[in-house]
Amino acid sequence: MKRIVATGTFDLLHPGHLYYLEQSRRLGDELHVIVARDVNVKHKPRPIIPEEQRLRIVRGLRPVDHARLGDIADMFQPIREIQPAVITIGYDQHFSEAALERELQKRGLDVEVVRVGAYEGDPYCSSRVIVQQILERYRCAEQDQHR
Amino acid sequence: MKRIVATGTFDLLHPGHLYYLEQSRRLGDELHVIVARDVNVKHKPRPIIPEEQRLRIVRGLRPVDHARLGDIADMFQPIREIQPAVITIGYDQHFSEAALERELQKRGLDVEVVRVGAYEGDPYCSSRVIVQQILERYRCAEQDQHR
Repeated sequence: MKRIVATGTFDLLHPGHLYYLEQSRRLGDELHVIVARDVNVKHKPRPIIPEEQRLRIVRGLRPVDHARLGDIADMFQPIREIQPAVITIGYDQHFSEAALERELQKRGLDVEVVRVGAYEGDPYCSSRVIVQQILERYRCAEQDQHR
Repeated sequence: MKRIVATGTFDLLHPGHLYYLEQSRRLGDELHVIVARDVNVKHKPRPIIPEEQRLRIVRGLRPVDHARLGDIADMFQPIREIQPAVITIGYDQHFSEAALERELQKRGLDVEVVRVGAYEGDPYCSSRVIVQQILERYRCAEQDQHR
């Protein structure tokens, strides 16, 4: 049983998310998804949709076998529990494969890190772009994206 | 083989959509979803997400066996092709079960219409509420919802 872990915020769901999860699922036998906690999203605007609701949607997606919220204090705790063979990261996720593998090895976790490529098929494949589309539709000047 | 048809816009996906599809799927053996065409959405603001992208997301949901876009000119055409035993409508969809069954019968389509109840589990279970949440987050006065 080759377990794969995928992670993300999955705020306003789009086909880029689905592609990332489908590609991740193909790398093994069982896909576990770790959904980012609201309080742990710090490198981009906080999610529009609360964590429990984001988790519910991810659980409804066909490629997903198991999904859970991340650990607030220690991002490696779910990895210790799941013991995956592979962790996938999305094309736009902000850490390097090599650095993440080193952090895993330091903790005795022998996991391969694989980056999944970008999905190009649809126009609104980013939560930020969907938000901008809504603000433009309602003729709203965009103020302080990071509030 | 008992086929079920569910319909909707599925603009900004939320757990209410998922609940409606899961409940619909349980009524038969195969769930066919008809996703509203952009040009046919007239009773509420036009969708944020284009039809092809909305279709792609619906196809990624676990309860969905088949999904297609609606017919622009004749909403009954996909029903003739699918020949379902049941059509489900969501708790907030704007037609009556009896009126829809009569329209189907006029066209020789013997289909039961079943309304699925509301889902109460999450706070942002409406595309409109998600849009409002985004506008509030960015401190934007909401102007002319129906543009």
